[in-house]
Amino acid sequence: MAAALMLRVSVIWLHRQRRVWAESVAVVSSRAMASKTAVGFIGLGNMGTPMAQNLVKHGYPVIAHDVFPEACKEFQELGTQVTDSPADVAEKADRIITMLPSNPNVIDVYTGSNGILKKVKKGSLLIDSSTIDPAVSKELAKEAEKMGAVFMDAPVSGGVGAARAGNLTFMVGGVEQEFDAAKELLTCMGSNVVYCGEVGTGQAAKICNNMLLAISMIGTAETMNLGIRLGLDPKLLAKILNMSSGRCWSSDTYNPVPGVMEGVPSGNNYQGGFGTTLMAKDLGLAQISATNTKTPVPLGSLAHQIYRIMCAKGYAQKDFSSVFQFLREEENL
Amino acid sequence: MAAALMLRVSVIWLHRQRRVWAESVAVVSSRAMASKTAVGFIGLGNMGTPMAQNLVKHGYPVIAHDVFPEACKEFQELGTQVTDSPADVAEKADRIITMLPSNPNVIDVYTGSNGILKKVKKGSLLIDSSTIDPAVSKELAKEAEKMGAVFMDAPVSGGVGAARAGNLTFMVGGVEQEFDAAKELLTCMGSNVVYCGEVGTGQAAKICNNMLLAISMIGTAETMNLGIRLGLDPKLLAKILNMSSGRCWSSDTYNPVPGVMEGVPSGNNYQGGFGTTLMAKDLGLAQISATNTKTPVPLGSLAHQIYRIMCAKGYAQKDFSSVFQFLREEENL
Amino acid sequence: MAAALMLRVSVIWLHRQRRVWAESVAVVSSRAMASKTAVGFIGLGNMGTPMAQNLVKHGYPVIAHDVFPEACKEFQELGTQVTDSPADVAEKADRIITMLPSNPNVIDVYTGSNGILKKVKKGSLLIDSSTIDPAVSKELAKEAEKMGAVFMDAPVSGGVGAARAGNLTFMVGGVEQEFDAAKELLTCMGSNVVYCGEVGTGQAAKICNNMLLAISMIGTAETMNLGIRLGLDPKLLAKILNMSSGRCWSSDTYNPVPGVMEGVPSGNNYQGGFGTTLMAKDLGLAQISATNTKTPVPLGSLAHQIYRIMCAKGYAQKDFSSVFQFLREEENL
Amino acid sequence: MAAALMLRVSVIWLHRQRRVWAESVAVVSSRAMASKTAVGFIGLGNMGTPMAQNLVKHGYPVIAHDVFPEACKEFQELGTQVTDSPADVAEKADRIITMLPSNPNVIDVYTGSNGILKKVKKGSLLIDSSTIDPAVSKELAKEAEKMGAVFMDAPVSGGVGAARAGNLTFMVGGVEQEFDAAKELLTCMGSNVVYCGEVGTGQAAKICNNMLLAISMIGTAETMNLGIRLGLDPKLLAKILNMSSGRCWSSDTYNPVPGVMEGVPSGNNYQGGFGTTLMAKDLGLAQISATNTKTPVPLGSLAHQIYRIMCAKGYAQKDFSSVFQFLREEENL
Repeated sequence: MAAALMLRVSVIWLHRQRRVWAESVAVVSSRAMASKTAVGFIGLGNMGTPMAQNLVKHGYPVIAHDVFPEACKEFQELGTQVTDSPADVAEKADRIITMLPSNPNVIDVYTGSNGILKKVKKGSLLIDSSTIDPAVSKELAKEAEKMGAVFMDAPVSGGVGAARAGNLTFMVGGVEQEFDAAKELLTCMGSNVVYCGEVGTGQAAKICNNMLLAISMIGTAETMNLGIRLGLDPKLLAKILNMSSGRCWSSDTYNPVPGVMEGVPSGNNYQGGFGTTLMAKDLGLAQISATNTKTPVPLGSLAHQIYRIMCAKGYAQKDFSSVFQFLREEENL
Repeated sequence: MAAALMLRVSVIWLHRQRRVWAESVAVVSSRAMASKTAVGFIGLGNMGTPMAQNLVKHGYPVIAHDVFPEACKEFQELGTQVTDSPADVAEKADRIITMLPSNPNVIDVYTGSNGILKKVKKGSLLIDSSTIDPAVSKELAKEAEKMGAVFMDAPVSGGVGAARAGNLTFMVGGVEQEFDAAKELLTCMGSNVVYCGEVGTGQAAKICNNMLLAISMIGTAETMNLGIRLGLDPKLLAKILNMSSGRCWSSDTYNPVPGVMEGVPSGNNYQGGFGTTLMAKDLGLAQISATNTKTPVPLGSLAHQIYRIMCAKGYAQKDFSSVFQFLREEENL
Repeated sequence: MAAALMLRVSVIWLHRQRRVWAESVAVVSSRAMASKTAVGFIGLGNMGTPMAQNLVKHGYPVIAHDVFPEACKEFQELGTQVTDSPADVAEKADRIITMLPSNPNVIDVYTGSNGILKKVKKGSLLIDSSTIDPAVSKELAKEAEKMGAVFMDAPVSGGVGAARAGNLTFMVGGVEQEFDAAKELLTCMGSNVVYCGEVGTGQAAKICNNMLLAISMIGTAETMNLGIRLGLDPKLLAKILNMSSGRCWSSDTYNPVPGVMEGVPSGNNYQGGFGTTLMAKDLGLAQISATNTKTPVPLGSLAHQIYRIMCAKGYAQKDFSSVFQFLREEENL
Repeated sequence: MAAALMLRVSVIWLHRQRRVWAESVAVVSSRAMASKTAVGFIGLGNMGTPMAQNLVKHGYPVIAHDVFPEACKEFQELGTQVTDSPADVAEKADRIITMLPSNPNVIDVYTGSNGILKKVKKGSLLIDSSTIDPAVSKELAKEAEKMGAVFMDAPVSGGVGAARAGNLTFMVGGVEQEFDAAKELLTCMGSNVVYCGEVGTGQAAKICNNMLLAISMIGTAETMNLGIRLGLDPKLLAKILNMSSGRCWSSDTYNPVPGVMEGVPSGNNYQGGFGTTLMAKDLGLAQISATNTKTPVPLGSLAHQIYRIMCAKGYAQKDFSSVFQFLREEENL
């Protein structure tokens, strides 16, 4: 296994070297000189921690940072190097992965007074796996380019379980020539690494998918609830939808009605899964992107509002399929 | 083939007889005594005509009626008996299928001064394949019951092509003991006959599916449009959605973006398929059912409004996937 | 006062007689022969009771009916005649006012087996003050016409307080020649009687006003909430809106934010006023009318959904301005 | 008149001086030493040009700049000084007013490489009358503070006509001590200058008002259209609404239905007034502010989508009351 891995890495390394030579591009020279050089990782939250651990498992020395010192302890005990600031990470590693909650954190980690860009080395590869506004990704890519570094956006789909199992999906945007270099690292953490196009398109793909997911989930919840009130058995209705044109992932794989399917959050009081508050955040990003590009998204916009209202009604931490429960409640006069 | 059919019919007949004896129910005795007795068919439009023709092909003498005499000509030339009114049909046939545009037509054909119920025979089986308000179906079932007849709702999914090919899907609501009798006739016209529950649930299943279909189609159109404006290639975006949680029938089987798939209306200037005006009608039924049952359907309701607006903007006769085109148009200042 | 009233009534009577002679219309002859003949009143709920009492105060003998016998007791004690059924009322009075909760009640009271139309006298004037679907009003008018009677719709605006004080507003639809006859009675219960046009337009005016009211109330609530979260003082924001183009009745007369105005439900924990459940009902009627006339009402439709959701979240009995509270709740993670 | 004006200016000057002395605040010392010192003005578009002209009329020497040299010609001919960049303006004037189309323009004019903040003098007063995201205003205020300058937001209501007539309304956010200094200049261009609170609240008030305006305008259009289709005369319906709880500025002052009122855009094919594209922009700002503050604005959000769609359907340049026309179009099958 280790041998096979070594081989694969070598092939990637050779492939990479050849490309670099062929293109006579000096930009990314240093960081690829040796495989298994240190990789920086900033953001050790629920997702970041298992992701960084998977890098360690694949033999990469990791130089880590998080604003909360406690978050770093576990890593230090593993012998991982922990630094005081994003700038320090940038000084010590020329490949850095960031996994942060939202726009302001990402902007601060990159452009703040102790940010990555303050000490980034020429030719560094910066991969942001946070889910943020694609317009911010584009801005950061411009700033990175000024410093001679390459910025790519690579948000993930899949939750904490997939992060632990190392089978996340990465949607990657950025300069195509750098995709292989990014993929080398991302495949340590995910089973599926998709190149989406220029910088920002990874984010675009992520928020597009989640917007459609939110719409079809709410749609499924409304439909199942209406059907039940009209006298249909929920299992039968799901079966009919799933063999018809109403079929969607939310109806056939993640049905929001308790009792229709097993092994999904609706069968477990909507615990686990993908939280309503996270869905509301992604819909906010979709909304902002749509506003900026003057794109009409009437249903996406209403889905955003519904998840926003739910967050204030006690559903923030429940799985987003709990919209069925939210809509289901009946009037008690 | 004919022998096999005879056998199947006999088996059905035997099965039916046994059930009738066992339950000592006299209600539906006469009409099932002999197979291949006349079947009434009211409503010879784009859908009704090929449906009735399929009954003829299966050996059933058809007694037809339509308010427009021209609609009946084709049938008369085939030797089919045409009558002047629904009441006349009811006098001559104890199994009647109706296929009409909307609530008022159905109400009139059943309860009007020359309606079916004026002359319906005791024990008759009345099957309505129109798509109407399930509350109307329930009312008609009550009225039929007063006359000693059985009313079932059996709306279809599948368009004119499926009607011709005899592979419609029927969603059937009504007394369960009568389902086999209904199925005997419906299998001549459809490949899939699903029992949904008490009267009205066939309609409920139909409008539920179409509501979810409308929501996910508009959602897909919004999402594809947003992705394209954010720099994603439409084929790539469709591929990403279809392997992710945004996947739905509208994205993977009937994609609304021209060029993404072949053999769908979006590839043919949105001609053919399921017209926007028909979708708007079904969403109106869903809306009325939701209002009557006090069920919140925020996305279904907004989908209804969007298709309603589209009808007035030149999209009435285009396939309902043309919502992509509707949302796609850009501002020209 | 009594003399003045007598005079006014006489003038009305004379005016009425002259009109009847001039037009040689026999339809409404009997009931107008003498003023102060009995008036029927069906529906003695929160609104109907004070309305009927105002008729009594104005000297009209009232013949009352309600499905709940207890509702009639108070009247019987006042010496008012109470009958067993709407049909009985119709036998004893040729002017009848109905004030009922919703479509099915009205349909039953008029067309049921003991309904008004079973024993209505030729030339009777039937005034329905319930708030119902205008299409139902039109149907009832047709049925009444078959019996030689006149049906008018006259829904009210103003709540229980206005009903007691006798200053309701009536919006009246029906044959214009009958408006004066209706007005004679309605002015006993309301200070404002507006003729709206053909039958059904009274209902139309009522549900149109309430739809716009619901939209601007929710809009005001959203706006005030957004402004507060952006740092504005609510009183100042209300002042700015009220001198600007955002001004509406909901912002300047019935502001939904506690503390901005006095003497409105928002200052009293949203008690009293116009209940959310009643608003949801009226929006349902608006939605059905819009669906039937193929009229796009995107905001009206969404307002309906919001009030529907609120009904199931504990707001059913609160004043409809409590939508501010509903939207205001903040996320607690 | 001139004397009276001089007096008023002197009083303001005295008042201002006294305040400055009393508070011992040195920040704004230099610019207030003499009244009628030069005022910078950046952004000479349809609104900015007449605004700057009104400053000139009031005796203020204006130092102007616009990215388009042609826009400055008219001013140069009047003897006004025109400079090459915002930085140059800041070098020559310590009171500057900016009037620009949108966020990026404002950010660039203040923080760009030739921006105001590059050469702003300590104690300068910077007033931005553009309509932008209040979060951007807050950021700029922080940046200005770092340079020892004061930034206030002061967006306007009222269009080109009001700009010419000098009776705009200014909604002002920023440090309260500076309000009088801002008011001195703003009263030259507007008849109403309202202090809203800390920096950003001027923008907040503006976008709140316009969001409610958009909602009630679309609501009025839907309602009038529904009423007309239900048989009501539009003038009568408007009259009923305006004496009832549906009343709003859009129904009683700016009715969107042609023929109901005179002197409004609906009577002139929706020419003039406030363009749909501008309303869509303001709703986008409201949407972004709501997203950032996690405030649910379901109707505001849908109003945004409707105006966005209208922009792509030929309504971009029409007055925003043309939403009536947009919704009114009927289906032609």
